[in-house]
Amino acid sequence: MVDIIHRVGIRTPVEKVYAALSTIDGICGWWTRQTSGASEPGARIALQFYSPDGSKVGDIEMQVVELEPDRHVHWRFVSGPEEWIDTDATFQLAQDGDWTIVRFGHRHWREPGEFTEHCSTKWATFLLSLKEFVETGRGRPSPADLWIGNWH
Amino acid sequence: MVDIIHRVGIRTPVEKVYAALSTIDGICGWWTRQTSGASEPGARIALQFYSPDGSKVGDIEMQVVELEPDRHVHWRFVSGPEEWIDTDATFQLAQDGDWTIVRFGHRHWREPGEFTEHCSTKWATFLLSLKEFVETGRGRPSPADLWIGNWH
Repeated sequence: MVDIIHRVGIRTPVEKVYAALSTIDGICGWWTRQTSGASEPGARIALQFYSPDGSKVGDIEMQVVELEPDRHVHWRFVSGPEEWIDTDATFQLAQDGDWTIVRFGHRHWREPGEFTEHCSTKWATFLLSLKEFVETGRGRPSPADLWIGNWH
Repeated sequence: MVDIIHRVGIRTPVEKVYAALSTIDGICGWWTRQTSGASEPGARIALQFYSPDGSKVGDIEMQVVELEPDRHVHWRFVSGPEEWIDTDATFQLAQDGDWTIVRFGHRHWREPGEFTEHCSTKWATFLLSLKEFVETGRGRPSPADLWIGNWH
C-alpha cells in the first residue's frame, strides 16, 4: 500500500498552525480561497479550486472527523476525485522549541497510481503554502497555487 | 509499507530531463552543486550537501543501477543516512505532447517514520528544482535548496 506522507517544520507556536488547519478562514489562507462550511467534528467543509483564468479545476467535500486542539486534525473526503472518496487526511502537530512540526498523511488509497504520485507532490506544495501562510501571513492558496505539471 | 512517490510535469523535451538526471553536470543543477563521480551503470556518484553558511549537512553516495536513455534512471544508495542505505530512487520519464512526465519513487524503506516523511517533502522540493532547472536553466540545488523545517 502506498500512502502520501510529508513533514514540515513551521517556525511559530502550535496554536497558529492549528488555527490555520481548523478554521475556514485558516484553510482559505493556504489551500483554496473558496472554502466554506463548518469546521467542527461531524460537519462538512466544501472546497473549490480554480485556475488563474477563472476556470474551475476541481471540487472537494470533506467531513471533519476529529479536531484535537493543537494536536490533531482529521478529515475524510466524501466527494471530489473518485480516488479520494473515503480516504483520510491527518495532520499531527507537535511543538519542538521554536518550531511546530506538522506530520501529514493522506491514507487509505485503494489503487495508488500516477494520480496518487501527482497528489503527493501537490500536497507538498500546499504544506509549504501552509508554512508560508503561518510564518508570513501570505500563502499560495488556489487559484495562486504552484502548478507542478500538466495536471495542474 | 510506505514509499515516497511523486510526479511532476516539465514543459520540455524528454532529452533535456534525461540529461539533468543522467549526467554529473545535470545533477549539480538541481540537487547539489557538490556532485562528483561517474554517471554510468555500476559506477558511483558522491553528493555533499551544505548549508548557506558553509556547514556540511550531509553526504550521500549512490550506485547507478540503470540508465535507459529518455526512459529510466535508477540509483541505489550505498552510504549516507542509515535509513537510505540499500533503498532505491527511480525516475520514469515519458513524453506527453509538450510535457515530459517524471514519475519518481524512493522505495524499500525498512522502517518508515518521521524521517521518511521529511524526505518525502524534501524530494518534492528537489523535483520542483529539477523542473525549474530544466525549464529555466536555474534550479535550487544545495546549498540554495529550500528549507522545509528544523531538519533542513
